Amino acid sequence: MENFFSIDDVTDLQELLQKALKVKADPLANSKLGKHRTLGLIFYNSSLRTRISSQKAAYNLGMDVITLNIGSDGWALESKDGVVMDQGTAEHIKDAAAVISEYVDVIGIRCFAGLKDREEDYLEGVLQNFIKHATVPIINLESSTLHPLQSLADLVTIETNKNKPKPKVVLTWAPHPRSLPQAVANSFVEWMKEADVELVITHPKGYDLSSKFSNGVTVEYDQNKAFEGADFIYAKNWSSYTSYGEILSKDTAWCVDESKMQLTNNAKFMHCLPVRRNVIVTDGVIDSENSLVIEQAGNRVVSIQTVLQEFLSK
Amino acid sequence: MENFFSIDDVTDLQELLQKALKVKADPLANSKLGKHRTLGLIFYNSSLRTRISSQKAAYNLGMDVITLNIGSDGWALESKDGVVMDQGTAEHIKDAAAVISEYVDVIGIRCFAGLKDREEDYLEGVLQNFIKHATVPIINLESSTLHPLQSLADLVTIETNKNKPKPKVVLTWAPHPRSLPQAVANSFVEWMKEADVELVITHPKGYDLSSKFSNGVTVEYDQNKAFEGADFIYAKNWSSYTSYGEILSKDTAWCVDESKMQLTNNAKFMHCLPVRRNVIVTDGVIDSENSLVIEQAGNRVVSIQTVLQEFLSK
Amino acid sequence: MENFFSIDDVTDLQELLQKALKVKADPLANSKLGKHRTLGLIFYNSSLRTRISSQKAAYNLGMDVITLNIGSDGWALESKDGVVMDQGTAEHIKDAAAVISEYVDVIGIRCFAGLKDREEDYLEGVLQNFIKHATVPIINLESSTLHPLQSLADLVTIETNKNKPKPKVVLTWAPHPRSLPQAVANSFVEWMKEADVELVITHPKGYDLSSKFSNGVTVEYDQNKAFEGADFIYAKNWSSYTSYGEILSKDTAWCVDESKMQLTNNAKFMHCLPVRRNVIVTDGVIDSENSLVIEQAGNRVVSIQTVLQEFLSK
Repeated sequence: MENFFSIDDVTDLQELLQKALKVKADPLANSKLGKHRTLGLIFYNSSLRTRISSQKAAYNLGMDVITLNIGSDGWALESKDGVVMDQGTAEHIKDAAAVISEYVDVIGIRCFAGLKDREEDYLEGVLQNFIKHATVPIINLESSTLHPLQSLADLVTIETNKNKPKPKVVLTWAPHPRSLPQAVANSFVEWMKEADVELVITHPKGYDLSSKFSNGVTVEYDQNKAFEGADFIYAKNWSSYTSYGEILSKDTAWCVDESKMQLTNNAKFMHCLPVRRNVIVTDGVIDSENSLVIEQAGNRVVSIQTVLQEFLSK
Repeated sequence: MENFFSIDDVTDLQELLQKALKVKADPLANSKLGKHRTLGLIFYNSSLRTRISSQKAAYNLGMDVITLNIGSDGWALESKDGVVMDQGTAEHIKDAAAVISEYVDVIGIRCFAGLKDREEDYLEGVLQNFIKHATVPIINLESSTLHPLQSLADLVTIETNKNKPKPKVVLTWAPHPRSLPQAVANSFVEWMKEADVELVITHPKGYDLSSKFSNGVTVEYDQNKAFEGADFIYAKNWSSYTSYGEILSKDTAWCVDESKMQLTNNAKFMHCLPVRRNVIVTDGVIDSENSLVIEQAGNRVVSIQTVLQEFLSK
Repeated sequence: MENFFSIDDVTDLQELLQKALKVKADPLANSKLGKHRTLGLIFYNSSLRTRISSQKAAYNLGMDVITLNIGSDGWALESKDGVVMDQGTAEHIKDAAAVISEYVDVIGIRCFAGLKDREEDYLEGVLQNFIKHATVPIINLESSTLHPLQSLADLVTIETNKNKPKPKVVLTWAPHPRSLPQAVANSFVEWMKEADVELVITHPKGYDLSSKFSNGVTVEYDQNKAFEGADFIYAKNWSSYTSYGEILSKDTAWCVDESKMQLTNNAKFMHCLPVRRNVIVTDGVIDSENSLVIEQAGNRVVSIQTVLQEFLSK
């Protein structure tokens, strides 16, 4: 594994999952592996779970950590090649990536979608430029279109909570007052397709994910029907991919509530957090015994620690 | 001690003070106690002393530290229960508290008073919600109404500088251009009432603290009279509690100057800092040999390190 | 060395350079020297290289690090003496400096020029106040008029890349859309004058540096002529010193391009970064084999680590 940008960087998912389960069982087993090695964390956007869990994972491995908020701590970065930089950006990503590589051993980057220009977002300019110009491994801390550390944490959560070999996992769209990226949904689908689960996606019409991700997956526009027999309900809002970045529905009927959970096979409830309570999901569901959201968030330490170990062990 | 929110969390003040004096005498005596343990520091508001002294104390104990600025690094948090979260807040405190508890071993939180709604401020929603929903100890880094780490540092400062068993300690209001919380004053009174001192509060009319704190304490509206025979002068501004958050006086006559210090028993001068020079206190007084403000600030490492040790030793 | 503010703090430049080369050769040779010692980093302004390289250097020495962004994390600081502080500043530098000295063992400070008032900028109020009132060593992380850590890194870069005992080093002004400080240029000149090089400065008329720095140095207003036979081209923009802070020229003819580099003795290209590509220098030059900019940035770890070692060894 040279970088951790998407599932394409994972050569053997089952092997990675087994390593993650070992990390979960004994987080301090490799507490000297990262001695005198530094993790650099670069944030274009806000973060709570990612920021804290990444640092915790690094500390578990004995690494040092340096965080940088681009645009407040640091400079605005240019990502287009060949530009005459006489406008707002003070430094080119290619220089920043090469320079930061001089100082740290692994770089994690968060950079959300702009949700204005689909083509630009799906080209993943920032992450791809860092991958191209950095000389150390790059970890995706949520990019325009993907959030693979979340997906690996989700996989660990499902693996350690499933009651049958091949559980039914339903990814359900839910309403949200703001326009959100497709990254968590795209990534979850990409990972679940490779995992030992029966995956169903449910959302209102107009919310189809890019076919690159949804190809080969059952899409069911009737949420109630989708929930039938489900072992895991994974709720998440995303804005439209086809009418890019738009909010086509705020239909509160899509909120995951107790009556809908009754349709399932006593399903566990999952969400990546932060979650809008009583918009995405009712208090009753998220505070129930079947809710895995806190354990799922806890597994964010497991997922990045597993990835860091891969890079440190090379 | 399960949390450190107020003096009510302290079962034996004398014992805690003795432990603090040991920390002051030998800060590195327990430098491995916090190995592989992490302190999370959450700031809703600016901080200099608290931010730096908390990290230093954690390092003295061998802990790792993660800091988070809510609202810039992270998300705006909802603190009301049962709310339909379709407005400005992205995450509920109950989820944030539970999640952060997955990552760190002790959480420190700073959240100042809004000074708009007295009842809301004195309910201490943010801190109390963290205490309720976190699964690790919570340390108050200054809340709406209390600043107990400052008070413990103040107690250590008085203990190590007093010339008699029961010194006279005067808390004096002083003017300030902005509306400030009552937290430092409330907390100082709460702690001094339990300590071996003779406490007098002096302030202009209209600046009485909540009776919850001032009950049983001598209040003297004549500042000169209050200063007579004082061994310690503790200056601090606060806005009105009765006319909540209002500035009722900017009377420069309340500034602590050399002539007023002449009325005392060669008193030591204290202030929690940051201080408005020549508004709260003259350069002459704060720069005099009797000024303890820098040592007092230094004791902020001692106070939080003492509290951290309590939690780590359990 | 009591502080590291300017080259005047260096008693023996050759000795310091030799120490720096040892740090470069073996960065972890003193990995326990800084145990239980803390570096405090205070930023009035944005930083990428300085922020990250300073932390990395501290970690290489086993130090802990605490960073503080003045004005966002902390408070606005007053730097004038005797002021009645009833306006915007919440704390005086003299108190902040003394307090921070209670918590950390070395303080690094970045505070750029305001570029409004030349006299004020060149008095270096912030740094000088910290030096006056702190009780621990102060490191200049780029002040109004100087950037000595950059200059030491530049010296190391030249020393390890020169092909002759006394190379010709040309500092060339280059255009920039915004008004920039003279700090990097001033400092570079100050250090090169003490080093074993032949120094030439070239810039359009009106861009002469303060005579304090340029005295005794060849200034050549014809850039092409200056480049002839150069072994190192160091590009940097600065605003006018005489018409203080003004942009007198945006002449794109001063951009360092391939044709100008042809005039040199196969010169290496240097710039402190961040750099405006195709404004200061063309992609062709900065991406060429002769470009040292990334190695030069990497040497920022070397320069601050060398300085930290000096303070820790005392």
